[in-house]
Amino acid sequence: MLTRQKINASVSPKGSLETLSQREVQQLRETGSGSVYALFRQCALAILNTGSHSDNAKTILEAYPDFEVKIHQQDRGIRLELINAPADAFVDGEMIASTREMLFSALRDIVYTQSELENKRVDVDSSSGLTDYVFHLLRNARTLRAGAEPKMVVCWGGHSISTEEYKYTKKVGHELGLRALDVCTGCGPGVMKGPMKGATISHAKQRIVGARYLGLTEPGIIAAEAPNPIVNELVILPDIEKRLEAFVRLGHGIIIFPGGAGTAEEFLYLLGILMHPDNAELPFPLVLTGPKSAEPYLQQLHDFIGATLGREAQNRYVLIPNDPAAVARHMAAGIKAVKQFRRERNDAFHFNWLLKIDESFQHPFEPTHEAMAGLNLTREQPTHELAANLRRAFSGIVAGNVKAHGIQLIEEHGPYELRGDKSIMQPLDRLLQAFVEQHRMKLPGGSAYVPCYRVVS
Amino acid sequence: MLTRQKINASVSPKGSLETLSQREVQQLRETGSGSVYALFRQCALAILNTGSHSDNAKTILEAYPDFEVKIHQQDRGIRLELINAPADAFVDGEMIASTREMLFSALRDIVYTQSELENKRVDVDSSSGLTDYVFHLLRNARTLRAGAEPKMVVCWGGHSISTEEYKYTKKVGHELGLRALDVCTGCGPGVMKGPMKGATISHAKQRIVGARYLGLTEPGIIAAEAPNPIVNELVILPDIEKRLEAFVRLGHGIIIFPGGAGTAEEFLYLLGILMHPDNAELPFPLVLTGPKSAEPYLQQLHDFIGATLGREAQNRYVLIPNDPAAVARHMAAGIKAVKQFRRERNDAFHFNWLLKIDESFQHPFEPTHEAMAGLNLTREQPTHELAANLRRAFSGIVAGNVKAHGIQLIEEHGPYELRGDKSIMQPLDRLLQAFVEQHRMKLPGGSAYVPCYRVVS
Amino acid sequence: MLTRQKINASVSPKGSLETLSQREVQQLRETGSGSVYALFRQCALAILNTGSHSDNAKTILEAYPDFEVKIHQQDRGIRLELINAPADAFVDGEMIASTREMLFSALRDIVYTQSELENKRVDVDSSSGLTDYVFHLLRNARTLRAGAEPKMVVCWGGHSISTEEYKYTKKVGHELGLRALDVCTGCGPGVMKGPMKGATISHAKQRIVGARYLGLTEPGIIAAEAPNPIVNELVILPDIEKRLEAFVRLGHGIIIFPGGAGTAEEFLYLLGILMHPDNAELPFPLVLTGPKSAEPYLQQLHDFIGATLGREAQNRYVLIPNDPAAVARHMAAGIKAVKQFRRERNDAFHFNWLLKIDESFQHPFEPTHEAMAGLNLTREQPTHELAANLRRAFSGIVAGNVKAHGIQLIEEHGPYELRGDKSIMQPLDRLLQAFVEQHRMKLPGGSAYVPCYRVVS
Amino acid sequence: MLTRQKINASVSPKGSLETLSQREVQQLRETGSGSVYALFRQCALAILNTGSHSDNAKTILEAYPDFEVKIHQQDRGIRLELINAPADAFVDGEMIASTREMLFSALRDIVYTQSELENKRVDVDSSSGLTDYVFHLLRNARTLRAGAEPKMVVCWGGHSISTEEYKYTKKVGHELGLRALDVCTGCGPGVMKGPMKGATISHAKQRIVGARYLGLTEPGIIAAEAPNPIVNELVILPDIEKRLEAFVRLGHGIIIFPGGAGTAEEFLYLLGILMHPDNAELPFPLVLTGPKSAEPYLQQLHDFIGATLGREAQNRYVLIPNDPAAVARHMAAGIKAVKQFRRERNDAFHFNWLLKIDESFQHPFEPTHEAMAGLNLTREQPTHELAANLRRAFSGIVAGNVKAHGIQLIEEHGPYELRGDKSIMQPLDRLLQAFVEQHRMKLPGGSAYVPCYRVVS
Repeated sequence: MLTRQKINASVSPKGSLETLSQREVQQLRETGSGSVYALFRQCALAILNTGSHSDNAKTILEAYPDFEVKIHQQDRGIRLELINAPADAFVDGEMIASTREMLFSALRDIVYTQSELENKRVDVDSSSGLTDYVFHLLRNARTLRAGAEPKMVVCWGGHSISTEEYKYTKKVGHELGLRALDVCTGCGPGVMKGPMKGATISHAKQRIVGARYLGLTEPGIIAAEAPNPIVNELVILPDIEKRLEAFVRLGHGIIIFPGGAGTAEEFLYLLGILMHPDNAELPFPLVLTGPKSAEPYLQQLHDFIGATLGREAQNRYVLIPNDPAAVARHMAAGIKAVKQFRRERNDAFHFNWLLKIDESFQHPFEPTHEAMAGLNLTREQPTHELAANLRRAFSGIVAGNVKAHGIQLIEEHGPYELRGDKSIMQPLDRLLQAFVEQHRMKLPGGSAYVPCYRVVS
Repeated sequence: MLTRQKINASVSPKGSLETLSQREVQQLRETGSGSVYALFRQCALAILNTGSHSDNAKTILEAYPDFEVKIHQQDRGIRLELINAPADAFVDGEMIASTREMLFSALRDIVYTQSELENKRVDVDSSSGLTDYVFHLLRNARTLRAGAEPKMVVCWGGHSISTEEYKYTKKVGHELGLRALDVCTGCGPGVMKGPMKGATISHAKQRIVGARYLGLTEPGIIAAEAPNPIVNELVILPDIEKRLEAFVRLGHGIIIFPGGAGTAEEFLYLLGILMHPDNAELPFPLVLTGPKSAEPYLQQLHDFIGATLGREAQNRYVLIPNDPAAVARHMAAGIKAVKQFRRERNDAFHFNWLLKIDESFQHPFEPTHEAMAGLNLTREQPTHELAANLRRAFSGIVAGNVKAHGIQLIEEHGPYELRGDKSIMQPLDRLLQAFVEQHRMKLPGGSAYVPCYRVVS
Repeated sequence: MLTRQKINASVSPKGSLETLSQREVQQLRETGSGSVYALFRQCALAILNTGSHSDNAKTILEAYPDFEVKIHQQDRGIRLELINAPADAFVDGEMIASTREMLFSALRDIVYTQSELENKRVDVDSSSGLTDYVFHLLRNARTLRAGAEPKMVVCWGGHSISTEEYKYTKKVGHELGLRALDVCTGCGPGVMKGPMKGATISHAKQRIVGARYLGLTEPGIIAAEAPNPIVNELVILPDIEKRLEAFVRLGHGIIIFPGGAGTAEEFLYLLGILMHPDNAELPFPLVLTGPKSAEPYLQQLHDFIGATLGREAQNRYVLIPNDPAAVARHMAAGIKAVKQFRRERNDAFHFNWLLKIDESFQHPFEPTHEAMAGLNLTREQPTHELAANLRRAFSGIVAGNVKAHGIQLIEEHGPYELRGDKSIMQPLDRLLQAFVEQHRMKLPGGSAYVPCYRVVS
Repeated sequence: MLTRQKINASVSPKGSLETLSQREVQQLRETGSGSVYALFRQCALAILNTGSHSDNAKTILEAYPDFEVKIHQQDRGIRLELINAPADAFVDGEMIASTREMLFSALRDIVYTQSELENKRVDVDSSSGLTDYVFHLLRNARTLRAGAEPKMVVCWGGHSISTEEYKYTKKVGHELGLRALDVCTGCGPGVMKGPMKGATISHAKQRIVGARYLGLTEPGIIAAEAPNPIVNELVILPDIEKRLEAFVRLGHGIIIFPGGAGTAEEFLYLLGILMHPDNAELPFPLVLTGPKSAEPYLQQLHDFIGATLGREAQNRYVLIPNDPAAVARHMAAGIKAVKQFRRERNDAFHFNWLLKIDESFQHPFEPTHEAMAGLNLTREQPTHELAANLRRAFSGIVAGNVKAHGIQLIEEHGPYELRGDKSIMQPLDRLLQAFVEQHRMKLPGGSAYVPCYRVVS
């Protein structure tokens, strides 16, 4: 293992809007596993690790075992004292401004989530209660801007992609920015960074100030996909389902770039929602794109959707290979339709209330071996439910690949087993194999990918 | 009764930061007495009545019996539809911007309070729980600014004062503004307006942008003391005790101008707190001032404090008659000491956590005839508790004078009776008599003041 | 004579945009009468005297004989060292921000004027050359804002008016500000301050940032009419004719309040221009207004215009006594027409190029006794030329009343003599008599007014 | 020749501060070679050509022979009508904001220069007169910011460099931006773009708003080195000597990246100035840097300086190969020393008055064949004069390579001839040969480089 450079520092909240009550500060001081402090420490470490290239959560957490963060109340608000922090987050001894901001964003969201749960305010038993929770958390994070024009484009795709694919995402981001569109991603490296970087340049060219680079993450993924420093709004949702719901309710359109199991999960989640009969009329621009070199990948994913969910699913998105300007133009036109639709239906620009999300998409899926084995992957269910179950399968695979808890489960019990109809399982197996062959599920650092699942036909 | 000009209008949230969930909108639509809607309607009417000169809550509410406000969700956030609204809030058919802002501030605070109570989040049984509640409400209203310098001066005094007294408050405000200090008041007319108006001019002279004119009110008082349109931050606290706590935790210094029973209540509240042994070391600049013509009044109030609470209480404030520049200089110097103290003790500039407020000051005092009659106004208690009880006595008198519920109680049961030690009751009676003679408790409109209390020796 | 409080101070250019070349600094250091330095010293003294109430230029200049201002080049630009400066410009030893800004504005304009003249850049022999000069000076002062909406209302009237008239100008300013209009005046006290003060309050109510309070002055008048500190843009034009041209080319509408000879001069100047045949189609909102108490004055002025320039002249303005809201509404509607007209004719919003100003209005009028005696005040000329000559007559009277040079001339040679047609001279004499009776030409300080002119019929 | 896409458009001055007088508009309308219009048309075409990759001025001008730009006065200021403009400057039919801004900057500078010359305001016969001219032009362009901290880093180097060199300049720019430094370049592609692009990203990470990307150019070079669209301040100086003076008086430090003859010219110009005895004490951070692959080049340039100007010249700069962070740290530290020095000497942060520039560096060098042949390239002169003559030699070579007029001269009369001491001519010849071998003087498009000079020993 590398010896890492470490630094001690004290961070004042310059420019941060966050204030805490004495009680909140007190809670954050109470250490112990499962405590608010443990959660904050983990997120803070990921944020400080922002330039790093490892995407194995365990690796990062283990690399700084003696990292500590202390919270102090002081005259101008909160001060954070960092002990044994990764040195990369600093320039000549001073913390990069975006990193400092993100630390306080993490503080804000973790304190809020904790307080909501403690006070049993969230109605976890109803779909509308869960949506309300997402709304309240985003509102508290000042993510919802009354009066802002619809222009938030969500970009999904892999955090570990080829150089050509990365450059392509920058170009698409550049074209989005030229058209004054904002970018929202999962806030890590790869596809989560490229479009933001491209848009930063074109927003500068267009003299746009106040452009938004929104990163949505959750505690389980943040360590593996450290927020890139272009992100100027970071929100930490409590779990993967809330995060996905935040993406689709905030975004006015979504672009899918090449990626691995995580990207497939997101794509299936969205298709499952859009295919719900209640959403039949709802405009939602969705583009599948990538550079010339990724065309086979795009085609394969497209075919997989066709084979499992059918033509109807394919109709909800457009495949635009290797044409950044065309992607941006499609998005701009699609968002115009979204604007028109919401105006007519009196729906908010800042939150897609009209989008129906079935409760089955909202509850956390705990990828135990039993749960994975029990997934209904047959045709004997409505298509949007099949999409939900396929999404769960990919969710489990992501957990087994990169999340601390998932990796541990696989280490203990071996790979997950997946069962279902042959006409579904065969395309699934082929897609997953292709991902492996294209190194889309390989971890950086050179270690060969050992699949965390087994398709049992 | 006058026929009032009325107008129908639809108000968009231009510049407002507020967003509501569908559920919150739904709740606001449910009418009925005691409902969230009823509360909002009442506050909205007071805000729209901003230029008016009546300070009788009943009068205002009765003048617009058919006023309605409807809340709609729409593309850019919330839209308010106003029916039969007072025409004075509009210029050539368009609502004055500050009024529009205040409507949305009221919406924000009422929704927040409702949600806190509904979810039983407030720990009303502990002093720290109540302080937390005030903190959370102010934080939600974005009143707490991490990183801002201490410079908030609270001005207390009557809403119905003489022209000379009003001009004097403008001069003091002008001197405060020249020294880059902000102004916080109870947000109505009179002393609540003058300092803000004076400071607006001097802030312009000093090229200060972002100056704060903070108004703190509560539903029971807002109708009688409609927010003046200089206020650029309005917070509606749920009751009078939360409002008083907000004043003393937000303000970095307080100026007492001439006023009636309400001013005396505020003054006693603050003295009771500052005399608590725990606050002995805590710096808190406090000035009693007024123009030349108010000198007898100031002297009488000063003597009353001496006679009832003693020299120790007098030592917590400075009497500076007729010298606006000296008042502002004293305030500026005092706030410098506050800044130094908080820096040393690591207390926040934006919230005075170190100030000890005894629980007896935090619980609402319900001025029933029994409660008023039962007040312990004897010397057989610590001085700061005597201050608390005297404050309650004045609180009851204010309610009997201007609050809808209090006026009704007096109409039904006759004046309150107050009992206690002669050495306390005599100065109290003299002070109240003087208030009456100086027309400090007379309602505008020419009606003679009929006391709502009786001192029983 | 009063002993005045004096102060020494060093002023840094915080927020100032001005930079000077080494040569410009050098020039400003060369003292001697008639030098750039002497001019700057005089303007600086007037600016520092901002709160003072004397309007006799000689008095002010004589009160601070040992005042000096030194200009230093330094790291962050220019630093001014002030010696024996009036203490009123400082609060607790620090200069008021607006005063500091105005000092640097004076520096900017004086350096610019000097440089233009030195380089013989101004074509003083053609009307278009003189207009160009005004344009260039205003552009250099950043007064011309490409892209800004037309909303600049010029307010003309006396600097020494009654309390009731002053309050009325505040009310009109308040109504203008409520309608988002800006205010431009001659930047002294009285009518030059009231509308700005009123608009400051209403701009605050309307949450307007970046409102403009533009003061136009010239070296001969600045000492007598020190800029009030609300002014947030100060421009010093080189002489009275350039200043008048600046008013009418920048303003989108003009309001005439009560005043004395100076106001009459301005009114006649404008009527003379508007009556030029070339301007017959050009919309230019012009209102004559004042409080109830000023109605006789307004009527008399109105009658004087009728008697000398006729009905046609009266048709170019509207008389609206005692109705601030109506004045503002008329102005708002008139400016809408101006906007429409300029759009159609492709004229700039920021500079009224289409307004024809006859060269006779552009050349400085030197009010020697010969020139005054030689003025053609007969009907044997086109009406707009008669207006020009009447304007010169009033200009001479203003000089004799308040300008250093004029006062001296009168002291040496006795009053000016004015001659002309009886049908013109009689109304003129009546008007001037009325000004004297109404104390509109009386200097403050209690000294009775001794007329500086004599009407010779 | 390619057929180019062309577009007609009308551009409004959104966000532009520029206003023009009617006379200035009139002048711009007068066509004819050598006219203001011709100059503006040429600059406008270069600006619109911003994304293009040809750097042959003739090519660009010839590619759009029917390009026209018409200037109209209108309500909100100036409107430009573009006919047959390059389509690349537009996104979906709308002009990129930075391009639009630059058009108006060009207008501003060309009008200003024209007016100065027309009025014979520039004292071209004295060194201080020429410096004043540069100062006035920069002040008019609002480039001089009183009160701003010293942080402007000038980056010099080739516009046509290798991919590795380009990436290296981005990294250096990124490190500069992380340290809150601004970037100034000659505003074309290559080294003129890379550092700005890198800094844009790191300024975003550091949440710096108002960062400056300053481009200085001149009419003779702009067509060959079209301003890149990151530039957010463009200034067009009248000729190459004014431009060089602007660089060294505005910049607080300079970085030399790999380049060809133009870069050598700039380097020699600066060394010649810094070696002037009057500048011996003056701190001026100067770094020669490049990526690993450029080390031989850097070494050769370093050796050339040693061989011709000696060790003393080498002491005025630091050679830092392949270490972006070290370059930025050196610059940050050096600028700190500059700040200290100017504070002590009362020199402006925004303009380096204390830097002595010998008049021989200020006069335009007209690279005729006679002038080139007559250059004194011997040791019989002070070293800083030798530097001046070497700089002229390179200036001629640049003209022969890329400037319209120079190319034509070479076409007519064959290559320039250069003569001098062998100990100077040999290193010079070797350096130029190396430039050719390294393709540093090759034009893009594949045409082999034909030298425009001949060293005659």
